[in-house]
Amino acid sequence: MINPNYYCVIMAGGIGARFWPMSNSTTPKQFLDILGEGRTLIQKTFDRFTRVCPKENIYVVTSKNYRDITKAQLPDLADEQIILEPYRRNTAPCIAYANHKIKTKNPNATVVVAPSDHVILKEDVFIDVIEKGMASVSENDWLLTIGIRPSFPNTGYGYIQYDEDRVYAQNNSIYAVKTFTEKPELEMAKSFVESGEFLWNAGIFMWSLPTIQDAYMQHIPEVEMLFQQGDGLYNTPEETEFVDKIYQVCKNISVDYAVMEKAQNVKVYAAEFGWSDLGTWGSLYELRKKDDNRNVITGNHVKTYDTNKCIINVPKNKVVVVQGLEDYIVVENNDVLLICPKSEEQQIRQFVTDVQVDFGNKYV
Amino acid sequence: MINPNYYCVIMAGGIGARFWPMSNSTTPKQFLDILGEGRTLIQKTFDRFTRVCPKENIYVVTSKNYRDITKAQLPDLADEQIILEPYRRNTAPCIAYANHKIKTKNPNATVVVAPSDHVILKEDVFIDVIEKGMASVSENDWLLTIGIRPSFPNTGYGYIQYDEDRVYAQNNSIYAVKTFTEKPELEMAKSFVESGEFLWNAGIFMWSLPTIQDAYMQHIPEVEMLFQQGDGLYNTPEETEFVDKIYQVCKNISVDYAVMEKAQNVKVYAAEFGWSDLGTWGSLYELRKKDDNRNVITGNHVKTYDTNKCIINVPKNKVVVVQGLEDYIVVENNDVLLICPKSEEQQIRQFVTDVQVDFGNKYV
Repeated sequence: MINPNYYCVIMAGGIGARFWPMSNSTTPKQFLDILGEGRTLIQKTFDRFTRVCPKENIYVVTSKNYRDITKAQLPDLADEQIILEPYRRNTAPCIAYANHKIKTKNPNATVVVAPSDHVILKEDVFIDVIEKGMASVSENDWLLTIGIRPSFPNTGYGYIQYDEDRVYAQNNSIYAVKTFTEKPELEMAKSFVESGEFLWNAGIFMWSLPTIQDAYMQHIPEVEMLFQQGDGLYNTPEETEFVDKIYQVCKNISVDYAVMEKAQNVKVYAAEFGWSDLGTWGSLYELRKKDDNRNVITGNHVKTYDTNKCIINVPKNKVVVVQGLEDYIVVENNDVLLICPKSEEQQIRQFVTDVQVDFGNKYV
Repeated sequence: MINPNYYCVIMAGGIGARFWPMSNSTTPKQFLDILGEGRTLIQKTFDRFTRVCPKENIYVVTSKNYRDITKAQLPDLADEQIILEPYRRNTAPCIAYANHKIKTKNPNATVVVAPSDHVILKEDVFIDVIEKGMASVSENDWLLTIGIRPSFPNTGYGYIQYDEDRVYAQNNSIYAVKTFTEKPELEMAKSFVESGEFLWNAGIFMWSLPTIQDAYMQHIPEVEMLFQQGDGLYNTPEETEFVDKIYQVCKNISVDYAVMEKAQNVKVYAAEFGWSDLGTWGSLYELRKKDDNRNVITGNHVKTYDTNKCIINVPKNKVVVVQGLEDYIVVENNDVLLICPKSEEQQIRQFVTDVQVDFGNKYV
């Protein structure tokens, strides 16, 4: 039974430079079928949340540039379910905007906020976690985040230290939070994982609308008050002009930093549902099925010789012959080719910048 | 002063799989500007011979498939100067056909026969060699071939052993020939080079028409007689039908094997004019100008990082980012991409075969 009080906000404003040139500013990662399953990441995200929320209660927040691709990929969304940000201002303003839009529909909504471009392999477990989490935040004034049990000392994630002794009586996976730590150094990440007290911050949040709006008013009132000025304008013809105006002066800040790391009523739901933020080619490589030479190949006309542990991602009809590469990324999209060792993938952001400077915006 | 008795036959039937995918069966190597000079190899070859022969005495022998590209690249050629072979039968039939065509124009012609796809860096020296060679074969019934002083033990070339004691009085670069050796093993190639008695066979021949036709009649009469049956038909509307018929039954054999290795009147002109048969990516790499990282790059939008001694050849506007490759070939053409260590380039023929089998003729 789907609860008509449940709402979902899918954050889809990312520009995804790390998977360049497969992703680019025209088609960021969330709009790609990066796993080769026939549905893009945002479509998969939408599909998942239709199991928890009424379709008409699912909102996508994205940039104006991605309005058309969002409508094309999610034709079930009404125009008013696509919230368009005029500028990129990180997650705190994005969530504030969505909160005020939802408030016009249902001031007592229970809301789940999630990224559009993550992978969840165990969907049934995920749905169960979301349902239990939504039930808990509809009864408690909690800011609930999902923490993933870490499998290795990833230095690209935020970590949440939870308090084993302060566990919620009705759900023994929900804990009080001790600390948040942004991307730690490797040594610290190792000690986090070994301690057993830390979880990866998956960036998936649940709360009731009054609870999150109270938290905003307490911890980031300048942003909350900006959006409050628009109450009465949301879902009217004046909304766009108003939002354009306030975004120009709105702080650029993450909800983690602005609210979660400061609030006292933050809880974490410790879970494991085959989650990945798909932040790197390496993480995609780990998730994908390998061939006999442990290559992950996308493309129908690829031949490899003496080539192992590579990720090769090329257009369907492109003929590609690769001889003698190990542990490389070979990607072509949109008349751009990248060849790079997997171990050097953190340099891709630099390549994107260099290509933009040297050859212009059309390639990035 | 250009001698009106001088004729040139440019052999342009090669299909050039070794530079795949830059060359392919639609556009073999001779039709490519492989050195990036603004003229294709066959155009450069034609240009060179216009310094020795009247333009109207220059013939190109090629396959029917390459008639249009030949006319497009060499607009100065009249139709009858483009000799079209219906099937590929190696160099001996090709030369026999050209001989009989030329005989209709000038039975006492002096002829130089040369491949269309070699590189000659010192053109003035080359012209001097050709002029002196042509003069010598118009006065002597010699089959004269050009031998290049070897700079290293290349196992991909044929070698000619010359007789230092039997040198032509008027030109101390022309010697009697002792032996021909097809592509030797490395140890043998080393001893050839060390001995100082061996030259690379450049596949460039000079002779008078009566001398080469006598040699054909003596050493490969079955081929010569086939073509003799057509005397009276060459340069008439019946020529094509006749040639189609005889090529079906004609032997497939090289002029080296059929004639040069057997005849007693073979001489070699020992020369050095910056010659390369451009038989491999490696040989192209050696010839081309290197950048600061010793890369040879063709393409206007290529960026390399930690990449050395590579040959990168991609379409002008393709954006290519290469990180962490050393001694590789990266080539894209016609929607085909090849990545291969230079040391493995002898495998390219196999790749071409595999791609043809798996994906069809359109890519090879």
